[in-house]
Amino acid sequence: MIVVKMGGAQGVNLAAVCQDVAALIHQGQELIFVHGGSNETNELSEKLGHTPRFITTLSGFTSRYTDRQTLEIFAMATARINLILVEQLQKAGVNAVGLSGADGRLLSAKRNEAIRVVENGRRMVIRDDYTGKIETVNAGLLRSLLSAGLTPVIQPLAISEAGDALNVDADRAAAMVAGAVGAEQLILLTNVPGLLRSFPDESTLIPHITRAEIDSALSLAEGRMKKKVLGAVEALDLGVRKVIFADGRAASPLLGALAGQGTTIER
Amino acid sequence: MIVVKMGGAQGVNLAAVCQDVAALIHQGQELIFVHGGSNETNELSEKLGHTPRFITTLSGFTSRYTDRQTLEIFAMATARINLILVEQLQKAGVNAVGLSGADGRLLSAKRNEAIRVVENGRRMVIRDDYTGKIETVNAGLLRSLLSAGLTPVIQPLAISEAGDALNVDADRAAAMVAGAVGAEQLILLTNVPGLLRSFPDESTLIPHITRAEIDSALSLAEGRMKKKVLGAVEALDLGVRKVIFADGRAASPLLGALAGQGTTIER
Repeated sequence: MIVVKMGGAQGVNLAAVCQDVAALIHQGQELIFVHGGSNETNELSEKLGHTPRFITTLSGFTSRYTDRQTLEIFAMATARINLILVEQLQKAGVNAVGLSGADGRLLSAKRNEAIRVVENGRRMVIRDDYTGKIETVNAGLLRSLLSAGLTPVIQPLAISEAGDALNVDADRAAAMVAGAVGAEQLILLTNVPGLLRSFPDESTLIPHITRAEIDSALSLAEGRMKKKVLGAVEALDLGVRKVIFADGRAASPLLGALAGQGTTIER
Repeated sequence: MIVVKMGGAQGVNLAAVCQDVAALIHQGQELIFVHGGSNETNELSEKLGHTPRFITTLSGFTSRYTDRQTLEIFAMATARINLILVEQLQKAGVNAVGLSGADGRLLSAKRNEAIRVVENGRRMVIRDDYTGKIETVNAGLLRSLLSAGLTPVIQPLAISEAGDALNVDADRAAAMVAGAVGAEQLILLTNVPGLLRSFPDESTLIPHITRAEIDSALSLAEGRMKKKVLGAVEALDLGVRKVIFADGRAASPLLGALAGQGTTIER
């Protein structure tokens, strides 16, 4: 089993990714696809006059401030990506089925009730945020879809215990899914060739690191890549054998990654 | 088995509908929910600066002109309704799972390749419309979800043979689903008490008609109600025993309908 995670439709070769997914599935490979849609959410927010706002936690992570309206915009923007992926996969002969993490309680999360943030140098607590941390994955639902010949395409929403949809980080969602279904490999597609020793110099690609070297990798990673490294650690700790950071812009992003391109992280 | 169809979130008592769905499911009733979202699509289209446009066919039916951009807006608006329904049902203890008709090829449709329309008195042919007529329902997928204790909530998109998502009429989608799964009853919720002999006089409610009286019902029905009557005919002809037009604004829309409120159409 392979879990593949892609961001939104921007900055990746969507057609090539779907072609590779189809090639793998036609070879008999079981595969689950997880996607994001952060840029598309920003665009839709701007168009709807609800300017995106980001918050920085005390520990230095940046995330989208998600009030209810933002949650619904996030849901709409990622639903559009989900549909485009389902269409592309169906065109390639893959019987894809789109699901959000709220469907069948696929991804159950603990809502962030109080987020301590720093804004303009001041510490604040945010309490109306619809974000959360995934705690359980309904692996049975994924397995029953897979055994019916369907390929799940997962939109990064989870559901809280109270039944509210939550915005969750797609990289970490992919890691949790990979762990829950016992995937051997998790491929995280980005718009860079992999983890770079000296970002953004693509000639400084690190081809291989081990779980033990993760801390130094985390110090090298910038911005979004930090969350991807954390996702990789989560997946490895949940039993996934190999995580690959691969270039989603490539002509053959998944087959290339499986053939050794990108950065491989192994236990 | 009961199939319930509701429009969007406007003009119906959404909380009451979900409460009734939960009550029925907790009584052991199998149920499939189909929804629309036409008003929400109009609103989102306006906000995004893509003014809704409607076309009238030579046979007098009006439908949304759905170019690719409109299709994506329709998909986003109805995905939002779908998520709200899944959340409400989850809050009521129902393990709902949202699906569009593209997912797992749940609803396969023949795309309308050339629609003959009348615009400002002139006849025209429209060829870039992403609408279609459902031909087959993947009843196996619905049955496997139901037997896993899940309640399907269906977004009115279908998939063409070529793998393109299509906007389909939700009333007729509900009728096709009801026929395919062998439902005994189809409940179509509206914002009127049922079929009225003299629209909009609610005191002229017709409580009961038979399949044989449909033609006269069709002549009484105005606007949107015409499509509902056609949906009812389709469902009856596919073996559904009873179709009920019921008031979605009521305090107990589904339990009321099952107790005899609204207009009942039987074979």
